[in-house]
Amino acid sequence: MYVFVNAAMSADGKLSTRRREQVRISGPDDFARVDRLRADADAVLVGVGTVLADDPHLTVDDPSLRAARSDRGDPTNPARVVVDSRGRTPVDARILGTEATTYVVVSSAAADARRSALERAGAEVVVAGDDRVALADALPELGARGLETLMVEGGGEIIHSLFAAGLVDELSVYVGSVIVGGRDAPTLADGDGFVESFPDLSLDGVRRIDDGVLLEYTVAGRQDGGE
Amino acid sequence: MYVFVNAAMSADGKLSTRRREQVRISGPDDFARVDRLRADADAVLVGVGTVLADDPHLTVDDPSLRAARSDRGDPTNPARVVVDSRGRTPVDARILGTEATTYVVVSSAAADARRSALERAGAEVVVAGDDRVALADALPELGARGLETLMVEGGGEIIHSLFAAGLVDELSVYVGSVIVGGRDAPTLADGDGFVESFPDLSLDGVRRIDDGVLLEYTVAGRQDGGE
Repeated sequence: MYVFVNAAMSADGKLSTRRREQVRISGPDDFARVDRLRADADAVLVGVGTVLADDPHLTVDDPSLRAARSDRGDPTNPARVVVDSRGRTPVDARILGTEATTYVVVSSAAADARRSALERAGAEVVVAGDDRVALADALPELGARGLETLMVEGGGEIIHSLFAAGLVDELSVYVGSVIVGGRDAPTLADGDGFVESFPDLSLDGVRRIDDGVLLEYTVAGRQDGGE
Repeated sequence: MYVFVNAAMSADGKLSTRRREQVRISGPDDFARVDRLRADADAVLVGVGTVLADDPHLTVDDPSLRAARSDRGDPTNPARVVVDSRGRTPVDARILGTEATTYVVVSSAAADARRSALERAGAEVVVAGDDRVALADALPELGARGLETLMVEGGGEIIHSLFAAGLVDELSVYVGSVIVGGRDAPTLADGDGFVESFPDLSLDGVRRIDDGVLLEYTVAGRQDGGE
């Protein structure tokens, strides 16, 4: 499983405001770039927080990119994956629409009623982990379903969890030319954070796009030994 | 008064860990760049949180830069400014050392005993604001003392306050190739954050330094009208 994280943040590292409302961080050229990344992925993954805050559909916007997927024998849209320990994804969430297969990864702590409701709403429910989703177990489960390249679109909790589990191969960060601020606003990597060893990146590319800049990294390992 | 903010953050927008411990974010070339910026400033400003967490001295490291300051009739080191509403700067803080003049800007809420203690420790105490320091009043007070260019080195609370007050002219952000993570870790701009209108930046320069990248912005105004 190859995992690449793509996110847009403000110049101070925020994904949205403290109210979890989206801010215009990037522009049309970056939207097109993200659309191409989606079209190249087997699946697009988000945390349930992003589903609850933004209700994204995560489908490919450009019809020619969808056509190219079909031409090469892939589903029109990449699969969608929601990491959702308790099964809180609303049954009318856009991400459960019929445009693509959607996997909701829950933990054993998710109520049976929630699992059934999600299945009736069209989701394929995958169970991994006891109290919270164990990503290191979930990814091979998804791999077994034929998903080999996974694009992660956030939010900051799931991005942190993936880094903590050592599962990220590549990170692209679009840095928008705006300040959002807020000690409680979601950032690119939230969670508990690292304190002794830190995921170490290698900066492979720097590209100006729209009125901001795209930073492309591969994950190089850890600074200062294991945490 | 010309205000430029310079800070180093991780690729996810953090200035330090959730424990407020510093992380190696930049390298020798960036340290030299920061040293030159300090040598070019009339004063270097930090919030008291940075003094308590890092105990910085904020003097110019390179002897030739200090000599050049003396040659042009400036003090060997720029003045230092601590924004410290309650006067919590410890009397043995490095920033109160004799290498440079240090202004501690307090609010009227700071106890008289703290003001006197700071003065005995060598600080020049400036009062601006009632319960918290009013930056819009403090900066002209500093200007009246001959400080015309102010370099702000953090932390995230003071940087947010300066943006909120519309007092920032320029922002340089060094983005290090590391992930720190943590929903409680200090970010480049903390405070309450913006929710309706956002400080809008113009990206003037992108430069690779050490193993990261320096983003240079001027402040362009506000997106979406006044907050």
